Amino acid sequence: MNKKGIAVLGSTGSIGTQTLDVVRAFPDRFDIVVLTCGSNATLLVEQALEFLPQAVVVIDEAQFEFVKVKLSHTAIAVYSGMQALEEVVQFEEIDVVLNAIVGAAGLRPTIKAIENGKDIALANKETLVVAGELVMGLASQHQVQMLPVDSEHSAIFQCLAGEETNPIEKIYITASGGPFRGKDRSFLASVTKEHALKHPNWVMGAKITIDSASLMNKGLEVIEAKWLFDLEVDQVDVIVHPQSIVHSLVQFQDGSIKAQLGVPDMKLPIQYALSYPHRLENNFERFNFLDYPQLTFEKPDLHTFRNLALAYDSLRKGGNRPCVLNAANEIVVDAFLKDKISFLGMSDVIETVLEKVNYLARPSLDDYIECDYAARRIAEEIIN
Amino acid sequence: MNKKGIAVLGSTGSIGTQTLDVVRAFPDRFDIVVLTCGSNATLLVEQALEFLPQAVVVIDEAQFEFVKVKLSHTAIAVYSGMQALEEVVQFEEIDVVLNAIVGAAGLRPTIKAIENGKDIALANKETLVVAGELVMGLASQHQVQMLPVDSEHSAIFQCLAGEETNPIEKIYITASGGPFRGKDRSFLASVTKEHALKHPNWVMGAKITIDSASLMNKGLEVIEAKWLFDLEVDQVDVIVHPQSIVHSLVQFQDGSIKAQLGVPDMKLPIQYALSYPHRLENNFERFNFLDYPQLTFEKPDLHTFRNLALAYDSLRKGGNRPCVLNAANEIVVDAFLKDKISFLGMSDVIETVLEKVNYLARPSLDDYIECDYAARRIAEEIIN
Repeated sequence: MNKKGIAVLGSTGSIGTQTLDVVRAFPDRFDIVVLTCGSNATLLVEQALEFLPQAVVVIDEAQFEFVKVKLSHTAIAVYSGMQALEEVVQFEEIDVVLNAIVGAAGLRPTIKAIENGKDIALANKETLVVAGELVMGLASQHQVQMLPVDSEHSAIFQCLAGEETNPIEKIYITASGGPFRGKDRSFLASVTKEHALKHPNWVMGAKITIDSASLMNKGLEVIEAKWLFDLEVDQVDVIVHPQSIVHSLVQFQDGSIKAQLGVPDMKLPIQYALSYPHRLENNFERFNFLDYPQLTFEKPDLHTFRNLALAYDSLRKGGNRPCVLNAANEIVVDAFLKDKISFLGMSDVIETVLEKVNYLARPSLDDYIECDYAARRIAEEIIN
Repeated sequence: MNKKGIAVLGSTGSIGTQTLDVVRAFPDRFDIVVLTCGSNATLLVEQALEFLPQAVVVIDEAQFEFVKVKLSHTAIAVYSGMQALEEVVQFEEIDVVLNAIVGAAGLRPTIKAIENGKDIALANKETLVVAGELVMGLASQHQVQMLPVDSEHSAIFQCLAGEETNPIEKIYITASGGPFRGKDRSFLASVTKEHALKHPNWVMGAKITIDSASLMNKGLEVIEAKWLFDLEVDQVDVIVHPQSIVHSLVQFQDGSIKAQLGVPDMKLPIQYALSYPHRLENNFERFNFLDYPQLTFEKPDLHTFRNLALAYDSLRKGGNRPCVLNAANEIVVDAFLKDKISFLGMSDVIETVLEKVNYLARPSLDDYIECDYAARRIAEEIIN
């Protein structure tokens, strides 16, 4: 059996380290070809010494020398800077690029990987939020698989196995509702980042945890799903399911619904993306119904959690709107984590930015990059 | 597009009439070749005049003349008696035999249909309960599809689409728990057939409704599932789910669980069995999460509902045990419906019959027929 060659972009983050847990469990199946990180050079070196990739990239150029020295006794090539990502994803030995970069920065490496015929295991939802139409068009043109790693999209993808000829009527993306489910705007007015960082079910990075508390994460997932599964906006519904056991559902044109479920554990969707269409036996915790005698479902509160409403609006308007939404959101989440704005202030800033950036109906990649930049600048101006 | 030729065995019962509802909705896809019933000759004639099959069979020979006269102005051939079923399922124009006969009487026509290369849409679970190993072996030998019509087995079958290479770890068959869920044996001691015939979620025939109240239906489904999906007994679990929305679930070797769900409506699994692997757009009622804000799950009570324990025991022992269990059950349900024995008395009689019929490890078809007959005779002796 040929091993699958894997590049992990963002290997030191939450998804990255769990990806390496999966790879570690199946040494006969997967081979790490490239590892990259933002600035956690110490962990990157440790991972490199364990998995012996062909190359590593540390984005932060200040860390380059450290990594270079630490790996000098090995054959591992060391690169630095964003540009290097676009080089290393082209390596011939790579079959799948798992992109777990946080934010819109993941877009260009995804595109370069697709252009070089690599399948994409996509944890970087911003790739599709920012430029879904363009990216899916390229994926189709280069006949590469887009393998979702988000638990919700993986659930839908799993439910679609064997249903290739059967049109989807709608999908339900489940949402835990985050730590502030059931709260009203007066409560949200005073919440701190410490509150927001306590997700009830999932252990994740800081950015996505704040996005989960504000429901922007669900908004981004709606946009991602629209492109990934080629749906109309009205075919993508969100249902709040606080237990996070049912990871998402698909309703087909005969009315039949399929769901994928299990304990919340990102290793499962990561493993499925890497092993697809096969499933590999593992020792992950199994779901037990008796631990969850009730699974509950409710409508999301779009009045209190305005980010989700803004995401739907942006997707309906299309063009560069989701790109602007996402860029503004990255800035406001960063500002919230630095105590520069309030929880509710995040939606206010995003809404203002959406009003101020010019609408473009059919942006090019350069247009997206420019809109992303403009949105960030405007958001920063409003905050400072 | 070639129409699919369909024989409906048991066309005047609950599953049979719903099958004709499905066929009526897709006149371009399905063609009724054969209709058969037990004794409801009036409805059979009405159905025959609408669908114009090549032949009809009325099992009850006393009704033959009536049907013959009523259809004398048509080209429809009219037959009578059980033997005729084995003839008509061989017609060349038949692609799928939907077997909705109640009880072990469905076995022989299924076997004859398989031997003639017809796919089987199986609502007659007794076919597999009585002789699962034999029937699945024949199906494999003649390369025919066994398409489940039971909602639970259809759910599992739907979840297995696209997972052909992925081993099943276990399946969960969901059970509503019937009208007596949560009751104890002292309560069950005094229940009447009127109580037992009131199923909370499903409208079905009398036999299966009583079996649902006693959990024997779930026991028969466990046995059916074992053979249909080639599982070990311990891979088949039952979970009580009173809302009957999640129709069943499959857990794969990576721990991922897939479920099929929707409002309880037998027309969906019937349609899926006929249209498989395609799904046809329809106007069946759609599931709405807001109508079911809580889905609940609990362990079945095998102490109170002994039939389910007896079914597991029979399946573990194998050989002719499930055949004997089923035969005894048919007699006791009939006796219960005639007020000849009590609700709890049903399990007692079945248990005694299981002790009295000789164990056979590898029965032939003739052995099964003999065991079935012996079990019925012993059950009747005990009751009378």
